[in-house]
Amino acid sequence: MPAEPAVPAGRATPEDLDRADPLARFRDEFVTDDVIYLDGNSLGRLPHRTRRRLEEVVAVGWGRGLVGSWDEWIDLSTQVGDRLGAALLGAAAGTTVVSDSVTVNLHKLATAALDTQPGRPDVVTDAGNFPTDRYVLAEVARRAGGRLRTVPTDPVTGPAADAIGTALDDGVGLVSLSHVDYRSGSLADIAALTEQAHAAGAMVLWDLSHSVGAVPIDLPAAGVDLAIGCTYKYVNAGPGAPAFLFVAEALAERLASPIPGWFGTTEQFAMAAEHRARPGAARFLTGTPSVPGLVAVEAGVEILAEAGMEELRTKSLRLTDLLIDLATTSLAPLGFAVSTPTDPGRRGGHVSLSHPDARRISMAARRRRVVGDFRAPDLLRLAPVPLYTRFSDVAMAVERLDALVRLGEHQHVTVTGCAVT
Amino acid sequence: MPAEPAVPAGRATPEDLDRADPLARFRDEFVTDDVIYLDGNSLGRLPHRTRRRLEEVVAVGWGRGLVGSWDEWIDLSTQVGDRLGAALLGAAAGTTVVSDSVTVNLHKLATAALDTQPGRPDVVTDAGNFPTDRYVLAEVARRAGGRLRTVPTDPVTGPAADAIGTALDDGVGLVSLSHVDYRSGSLADIAALTEQAHAAGAMVLWDLSHSVGAVPIDLPAAGVDLAIGCTYKYVNAGPGAPAFLFVAEALAERLASPIPGWFGTTEQFAMAAEHRARPGAARFLTGTPSVPGLVAVEAGVEILAEAGMEELRTKSLRLTDLLIDLATTSLAPLGFAVSTPTDPGRRGGHVSLSHPDARRISMAARRRRVVGDFRAPDLLRLAPVPLYTRFSDVAMAVERLDALVRLGEHQHVTVTGCAVT
Repeated sequence: MPAEPAVPAGRATPEDLDRADPLARFRDEFVTDDVIYLDGNSLGRLPHRTRRRLEEVVAVGWGRGLVGSWDEWIDLSTQVGDRLGAALLGAAAGTTVVSDSVTVNLHKLATAALDTQPGRPDVVTDAGNFPTDRYVLAEVARRAGGRLRTVPTDPVTGPAADAIGTALDDGVGLVSLSHVDYRSGSLADIAALTEQAHAAGAMVLWDLSHSVGAVPIDLPAAGVDLAIGCTYKYVNAGPGAPAFLFVAEALAERLASPIPGWFGTTEQFAMAAEHRARPGAARFLTGTPSVPGLVAVEAGVEILAEAGMEELRTKSLRLTDLLIDLATTSLAPLGFAVSTPTDPGRRGGHVSLSHPDARRISMAARRRRVVGDFRAPDLLRLAPVPLYTRFSDVAMAVERLDALVRLGEHQHVTVTGCAVT
Repeated sequence: MPAEPAVPAGRATPEDLDRADPLARFRDEFVTDDVIYLDGNSLGRLPHRTRRRLEEVVAVGWGRGLVGSWDEWIDLSTQVGDRLGAALLGAAAGTTVVSDSVTVNLHKLATAALDTQPGRPDVVTDAGNFPTDRYVLAEVARRAGGRLRTVPTDPVTGPAADAIGTALDDGVGLVSLSHVDYRSGSLADIAALTEQAHAAGAMVLWDLSHSVGAVPIDLPAAGVDLAIGCTYKYVNAGPGAPAFLFVAEALAERLASPIPGWFGTTEQFAMAAEHRARPGAARFLTGTPSVPGLVAVEAGVEILAEAGMEELRTKSLRLTDLLIDLATTSLAPLGFAVSTPTDPGRRGGHVSLSHPDARRISMAARRRRVVGDFRAPDLLRLAPVPLYTRFSDVAMAVERLDALVRLGEHQHVTVTGCAVT
């Protein structure tokens, strides 16, 4: 039985859309091959400039400059933080730094937030939040004498304002949610949920890991207190690149890091007896940051800034619209269902398709050079990243998924391996 | 006035020593130039194999393998930890992991240690300990309801057992010291001080940042509970490479990480509701580690293992003996004094010379292609790292220091810049 044609007659073809794409040239910024890579929501592709700069910082900065290079590296965490904040978060200078991992940054900011909320030791999050967030928040709340209150999540639309509202009372000092749900790809209303938390006397800490670089963000406009996020997904900074954290300008002076490391102290090389917190978000710096990691973050931010987040969002929505359309028409009869909000205003950068055999389909697709990933129990996640994914890639990916399921190729797959967030 | 000849007649010349050096070939493992680099105690030199492997993990692992490479990266923190532990710490498999920074690892282990010491919320360290250690320990003690007790340090010999003994009582849950003092280079008696702390009911946490890769270490033989250390000094893993932590085998099951991240949980990809700590030191893993950083640590450990820590220590002591001899004979008349223990059993890998003008001398020396570093108020630190420093380098460095001070070159230097630990 032949597959349905992917695009109905009379519509613009994916190739038409590629030809009209104003961002098409950005694909040349990346190392690409014949793989249709739809897993940039887990690990973004390698930019050519990043490969070159990493070689340079290793061979020249480290290899030749040696310890003297620290003269130019010492402020990288704040410099790259400022650039990331300005390009991707709407954040003022001094409010964003790049350092540590998302997990460690979450611990620091959540702990510091509860420190300023006496009598409010509880934290609210949603049951579908990323595991490391739930684990760390539960421990931070426990150490503050409280507990983590977990709100049920809708598998497609994510946490709802009314469910969170029910969980809020004067025992809650902090609400921490993910901006884009790592499973469904649903996009939270960051301003509304922040306002709701503030009205109940709680601070907010947003995890932007699955939205930064995929969705335009303006943290000050949304009144956000604190935020964290990773750089190896849509910022394309490579496996384990350092994370960022954001602290609202008016808030920093009231917050103290629970890990007051020497990079977070004024007069770092005075080796003083007492830790004196640096102004702004820099007080949350800890130890020596990964210099190659910071160089890679800077390059990734640069490319996003050159393309422009509004333009990227426009293309991203067209790509995910196309994917949802094609999945609905050609994949639904094969047992797939769209598990991502169809409303573009409620959607991040990836689309999740549920299927009882999602895990094996995900693996069989790799043999056909289509790389998405699987999330238990039944989700196939597909992220058509606008910097390097073509409309024709999306159409071809759907055709291959269609063909492989029709041919039953996934039924011969042995389940192995892992995949990271 | 001409300088004294560096080597008295009748002794083996530095060139003789170089010719007889069984480790001489290891210099070829590193990117070198005409700089006499004596700052490997701050940032070690770049090994050729590390440059190659970093290029490969970026271009091939990330660029081509993309998310699929996580199948081989997912256990790197424990795999590289096991190799580092076996080669450098005498540690059994499962007791060492590579992750995060020294600062973050110190926070995790010190917090976990005090959690198991009810009624003993105080921490003892020495006043000369590295700033980040003092700052983090003070905060950990404060959060446990206690305080940091600071023991005076001798500027040359470091903290003394009797001073620490005086500070110990049943309010102290943890003693945390540096194995090698970052200023004087004095080497602590790790077994004796550990025994002393245990006898008083305290646990011990050793910071090995300035000793790992410079001095043979056997943590289990010394009865050490906990240890941390960095990899960008004598392990030569590059600027901001991830740190390690060690947890004694018998202790791990009693300890819980205050930052229970998803890399520290069993069944990481089950995304379970509750965090279940992994066995051993792996429970202290947090978020996604730097993959290039781990690759660099592995390469650095490999080279140290190939040379052998005992052989490296033997050469290191000969190098520092020579440096101390030459400094005593030719530099002492110029106002230098040796601020490192002359007893080889009390000395780490670097030698500190005090001089009222040490800062400017350190900078003037760079113009003469001799790179050491300065530590306030008056120390010039010089580390002849046995993997890549020749005896003739040491002699020439002393000759150049001698000449530049005699000529007053340092008096024209403008003080700028920083240098990292």
